Amino acid sequence: MAVYTEVPDDELSDFVAGYDIGAVLSAKGIAEGVENSNYLLHTEGGFYILTLYEKRVRESDLPFFVGLMEHLAAKGLVCPQPVKNRKGDALGRLAGRPAAIVTFLDGMGVKRPGVAHCGAVGEALARLHLAGADFPMRRENALSVQGWRPLYEAAKDRADTITPGLRAATEEALLELEAHWPEGLPGGVIHADLFPDNVFFIGPRLSGLIDFYFACTDAFAYDLAICLNAWCFEQDGSYNLTKGQAMIAGYRRVRALTQAEIDALPVLCRGAALRFMLTRLVDRLNVPPGALVRPKDPLEYYKKLRFHRRAESAADYGLVGTPA
Amino acid sequence: MAVYTEVPDDELSDFVAGYDIGAVLSAKGIAEGVENSNYLLHTEGGFYILTLYEKRVRESDLPFFVGLMEHLAAKGLVCPQPVKNRKGDALGRLAGRPAAIVTFLDGMGVKRPGVAHCGAVGEALARLHLAGADFPMRRENALSVQGWRPLYEAAKDRADTITPGLRAATEEALLELEAHWPEGLPGGVIHADLFPDNVFFIGPRLSGLIDFYFACTDAFAYDLAICLNAWCFEQDGSYNLTKGQAMIAGYRRVRALTQAEIDALPVLCRGAALRFMLTRLVDRLNVPPGALVRPKDPLEYYKKLRFHRRAESAADYGLVGTPA
Repeated sequence: MAVYTEVPDDELSDFVAGYDIGAVLSAKGIAEGVENSNYLLHTEGGFYILTLYEKRVRESDLPFFVGLMEHLAAKGLVCPQPVKNRKGDALGRLAGRPAAIVTFLDGMGVKRPGVAHCGAVGEALARLHLAGADFPMRRENALSVQGWRPLYEAAKDRADTITPGLRAATEEALLELEAHWPEGLPGGVIHADLFPDNVFFIGPRLSGLIDFYFACTDAFAYDLAICLNAWCFEQDGSYNLTKGQAMIAGYRRVRALTQAEIDALPVLCRGAALRFMLTRLVDRLNVPPGALVRPKDPLEYYKKLRFHRRAESAADYGLVGTPA
Repeated sequence: MAVYTEVPDDELSDFVAGYDIGAVLSAKGIAEGVENSNYLLHTEGGFYILTLYEKRVRESDLPFFVGLMEHLAAKGLVCPQPVKNRKGDALGRLAGRPAAIVTFLDGMGVKRPGVAHCGAVGEALARLHLAGADFPMRRENALSVQGWRPLYEAAKDRADTITPGLRAATEEALLELEAHWPEGLPGGVIHADLFPDNVFFIGPRLSGLIDFYFACTDAFAYDLAICLNAWCFEQDGSYNLTKGQAMIAGYRRVRALTQAEIDALPVLCRGAALRFMLTRLVDRLNVPPGALVRPKDPLEYYKKLRFHRRAESAADYGLVGTPA
């Protein structure tokens, strides 16, 4: 939630003049997207989102993200569609940053997801996996198992300042996951960050997915594990089995889970919890003085990790029946 | 630039259902308005701004602000127009706060105002003064001369921590202004905060005025003095006489300045500079730990005040010729 880069109005007018969307009528910084600066742009052609990519997004990854949104939109998935300028490019430069204009998507993130939302998210996630199956580009998941140890090393000396025992518990989980991380699961494009902020609803209807800036090539079931972590826990840290059932069943209505994916679900859930705990921990330990954004709480995922360490099978997450 | 109050989506849907603008399609927190929370609201009926009034705005003042916007819009001034709900009320409650929906206004604040912008602002300010002439409600200006001493008292003990000598210079200016503040000047509704953020342009054309939450009943020429302070100084603190000329001439094309107003312009400019210096000073000295918004620099207005103390007549601000 932030606007990092201010765009001078004359530079904005020049930038927009390169597109076939008419002249700028207004541009308002919006509180959306943690990693980038976003403006709601009104031109004579309609409403759009203007994104300026900030330093945390690698410029060399942008063609993957933008190409993926184009690919998914062409497949009928509702997601922001990059608008090409007159030269045919979906990526330009504005105020010294890489920038893109994408279509405006109606809908809002739900603050308090219910069971029906979780079911809809499971379905949409599976649709995303199927729609991305023939996307030709690849992007390694820098935040999968091989990326966790560097985060742990960066955080370990001060981890116990967040809560006593955090360092030892983190190291134990990391060693276990490094030893048992599943290989060879069905995979392709995953969203990798499909939190409630990134799924839009209009009333009860899921209206679209946004923020593909962590998307990468990885195991489909890992994406489901991320969503179970992000959607199916209550504020008090308890796992809501009914929500988990709805999400897994929703997913399976669209794409079957293999036995290997089902068997791997507990370890994938542990991995997903560790991944978000580690990035939040590093962010929290490195808040610059005077920062405008307070990083999210790493302990939320520490609690979730403890739940996962007691889970024995996919049934503990709400999977009912056998592969189908 | 902030969103202070988060609105749960079900409460928002219920609130909007009280209006004839269709169902909610999206709502995005926007970085606009320092005092209140603002959302860009898309409904089946179109685009709107939803404002939640935060604690710094007195609830008893809201009927004045909302009534004024209705009055000015009815007079043809382009400003946000409050939308009434089915009960005929323009003010409601949402997420525990007073709230209103106003029309969406195209245009953008200019980051680097030029001479032509200053001329257009002068004209628009005079139009606002004429359009508000028959507005029946009154609101005292709490931030005019009688409101400055309490601010000075609150800040004086720590003023010199901002810059040495600030306390003595402020007290001297305050005493002088209290002794010589003009009375009986032509007056009525003034905007009182018509900074570049609050004036929208589309290309070179002034497209509307926003943020009437400091509007009050006071001397028209004081409003002009505020605008000269806000628009006609350069980044380096120097006064741009060409911009001042354009603004004053623009104002006089629409509304004549009396000789008393012309004579009072230097003292009104000193008062306007002191007013913004004092509120910024109090804000700067009272930043809560972990605040998301850094208050603006009081020293900007300290420098402007020094310029004003050397100005001898309205000619030093760019007024050319005699009353007309």
